[in-house]
Amino acid sequence: MTILKVNNSFYEKFQYNVNSAIKDLQKEFGQQFSTSQSVREQHTSTTTVHKPELPDGVVFAYNKNDVQKTVRICHEHGCPIIPFGVGSSLEGHLNANFGGVSIDMNNLNNIIEVHPEDSTVTVQPGVTREQLNTYLRDTGLFFPIDPGANASIGGMTSTRASGTNAVRYGTMKDNVISLEVVMANGEIIKTASRARKSSAGYDLTRLLVGSEGTLGIITEITLKLYGIPEEIGAGRCTFSSVKDATDAVIMTIQAGIPVARIELLDIAQVKAVNNYSKLNLPEAPLLLLEFHGSKSSVKEQSELFNEISKDFGGNNFEWSSSVEERNKLWKARHDVYYAVKASRPEAEYIATDVCVPISRLSECIMETIEDMEKNNLYGPIVGHVGDGNFHVQLMIDPKIQKEVDVANDFLERLAHRAINMDGTCTGEHGVGQGKKQYLLDELGPAVDFMKLIKQELDPKGIMNPGKIL
Amino acid sequence: MTILKVNNSFYEKFQYNVNSAIKDLQKEFGQQFSTSQSVREQHTSTTTVHKPELPDGVVFAYNKNDVQKTVRICHEHGCPIIPFGVGSSLEGHLNANFGGVSIDMNNLNNIIEVHPEDSTVTVQPGVTREQLNTYLRDTGLFFPIDPGANASIGGMTSTRASGTNAVRYGTMKDNVISLEVVMANGEIIKTASRARKSSAGYDLTRLLVGSEGTLGIITEITLKLYGIPEEIGAGRCTFSSVKDATDAVIMTIQAGIPVARIELLDIAQVKAVNNYSKLNLPEAPLLLLEFHGSKSSVKEQSELFNEISKDFGGNNFEWSSSVEERNKLWKARHDVYYAVKASRPEAEYIATDVCVPISRLSECIMETIEDMEKNNLYGPIVGHVGDGNFHVQLMIDPKIQKEVDVANDFLERLAHRAINMDGTCTGEHGVGQGKKQYLLDELGPAVDFMKLIKQELDPKGIMNPGKIL
Repeated sequence: MTILKVNNSFYEKFQYNVNSAIKDLQKEFGQQFSTSQSVREQHTSTTTVHKPELPDGVVFAYNKNDVQKTVRICHEHGCPIIPFGVGSSLEGHLNANFGGVSIDMNNLNNIIEVHPEDSTVTVQPGVTREQLNTYLRDTGLFFPIDPGANASIGGMTSTRASGTNAVRYGTMKDNVISLEVVMANGEIIKTASRARKSSAGYDLTRLLVGSEGTLGIITEITLKLYGIPEEIGAGRCTFSSVKDATDAVIMTIQAGIPVARIELLDIAQVKAVNNYSKLNLPEAPLLLLEFHGSKSSVKEQSELFNEISKDFGGNNFEWSSSVEERNKLWKARHDVYYAVKASRPEAEYIATDVCVPISRLSECIMETIEDMEKNNLYGPIVGHVGDGNFHVQLMIDPKIQKEVDVANDFLERLAHRAINMDGTCTGEHGVGQGKKQYLLDELGPAVDFMKLIKQELDPKGIMNPGKIL
Repeated sequence: MTILKVNNSFYEKFQYNVNSAIKDLQKEFGQQFSTSQSVREQHTSTTTVHKPELPDGVVFAYNKNDVQKTVRICHEHGCPIIPFGVGSSLEGHLNANFGGVSIDMNNLNNIIEVHPEDSTVTVQPGVTREQLNTYLRDTGLFFPIDPGANASIGGMTSTRASGTNAVRYGTMKDNVISLEVVMANGEIIKTASRARKSSAGYDLTRLLVGSEGTLGIITEITLKLYGIPEEIGAGRCTFSSVKDATDAVIMTIQAGIPVARIELLDIAQVKAVNNYSKLNLPEAPLLLLEFHGSKSSVKEQSELFNEISKDFGGNNFEWSSSVEERNKLWKARHDVYYAVKASRPEAEYIATDVCVPISRLSECIMETIEDMEKNNLYGPIVGHVGDGNFHVQLMIDPKIQKEVDVANDFLERLAHRAINMDGTCTGEHGVGQGKKQYLLDELGPAVDFMKLIKQELDPKGIMNPGKIL
């Protein structure tokens, strides 16, 4: 059963021609090209309620020449092409709505060069976040963006990913310095130099970051790195309401405390985690925090936060800089996804990621919880509360049509609630297949200019069709 | 005499028709439109060696409707339109290379709304940096980007400006949340919501930031704000070589010291400032620093920097948190422009702004100083050394043709030196009229895609022609 509605009208004007491209790809790539059912099934969206739509074939690329050859063949014939990393996208980005080929980027997994003095690294797109940080460990540097999954850097770049420590380190938009990209006509461009800042022409780097594979295929990424903090402290604190918790967060940020992570779990989420992980956290809105810095700075940050939290009725603030204590404390956060899945095993998990100005966050969360209660929906909430971004993890039984209908209406209300509070329908997952109407509702005429750019840079519409527009 | 070469071939395909537009603008705007010589002379590039090229008329806009009407008339007739803020651009952005009209944005100077809880402000483009910070003082927040001049926020956005404290707070690219823009066809778009992060479609905000007025006219800007630091400490330190100074900077940044400003003055610059401001700074490469944070954090940062500087032979490190001492210390930096001008009154001042990965900075500066010595050129250097960005302030007598020729060759070598070190020809001033060839040398085929975007979004080429491309 289709749970989420998808509108592909923008792409219907393009004429696709898959079969002749497949023949040329077979000729060109031999064993590197597969049309087997199992390979195709592995190269589609599986971590979303959007139903899998299989590509007609899969190219296994090993270098940028493979990527360029694939794009040239697909461009010649007018064949859709969908870049594939580890497949952890939550918005149907990997589905072949119009058929075509998936290009598997996992073998482009070299770390090309680290420049410790410049705090930069250049990687191929198939490098994963964990692979990168393991590699970097001896340099004393790390790459902070952590969207949860062990995603590929290429995928994270394409969705403008962020995650738990964006509040301190920013998102992919802030941490990509330069890209090498194979454009839709097969031309390879470098979008910027390796300088930390630049006013050299239009910011093609940022245009490509978050373009969800619809403008080109990324073959190299230069990233900013950060020194591994001397000290990491972690803490937690409960509040009697979501409003008190978010007010404490607002005050913390205004006070200039450079908190590295500040995550909110609502009561439903705390209950789910308690059940799943055999914890006994108090059943109240919970903040989890992490502080990075020198020993004295982490101590100062923790103490300042403690003072602030007391003003908002925060209870039982505990913090520790021991790794063991920290891991224990963050277990609740890491288990969120599994805890929610386990709490209703017959249901499908629907990810959402609205983001609002932080002053509107408690109002947005409370209205959303009321909305779920009124409609008998179950969706624990976890939030990157320092950014105003939160996830309702809606659990829906796809066999119950009424529940599916109620859920679709709820999702629309959620997106519009965020938009009406001057927020966005997507803080970090991307538009993908399911949020195109919400993007229009959010930005209206700006979307026409996105379409102009798409049409000019990819006139045959071959780059990951069916997404964003 | 023309000092810098300008190539306008990209724009030659457009057919401009100024006179009929002028008639319609006169009819529409009456007293708000002027063709007087003195007004036209005030609305052109005067802070650059590019010779002034006057617009045919000037519209004084008071609101976005005025902007939209102007753009619609210019779009209809095919008339160039050049947005004008305070006129502090250094790259000839305000010149009317193809005639047309200047649109004066200074009366769009309202601060529309401050959201202290969200640390955001929305302003009109004519608001200046100092006006904004004066207005914000009571909120405990400030806007950090400081390009030196009291520039308009619209101009700073359009050139992707940065300045002394980008090392901590980033550039305009990092601090613009959303824009309202009148596009070349007269349509008004909002590029993003007010959420702190978003994955909602192509990043039109970043495409417009740094587009130098060539894609649309900005009518509203939403910015990130920061808490005014509890404590500000400032310090200075001399080194026996530029390399030692930059090595100390690299180590400071790697150690995670969140330095707010770190500026380098070379020996020629120190001498010029000593003469002009009657100081007696030691004639050696000088670092000026500023630390922001809590009292204890500023003390810790200063002490850590002191330790690091000693490892690189730093001398006489002094720091203070008194406002008076700080102002005295920064006087040397603030006087740089006037000191250089006064040191050779008969000469013209040519601004440059290459930016390289910081690991290459001392090499780039030293080769540049040697180059000037070999060619009898005089150009004191000041640098935003934490970003790898430095300014050679070349002083050239335009009456001496040989000097002009030597200078032009030097500027080309400087740009290519930076590009060959994986840096950029422009870190913060923009491409404007004079760096188009260097942009091509730096990014090659990527510039073709910039041209496609320009042609698609502004098919008649009316938006600030002659710049960037």
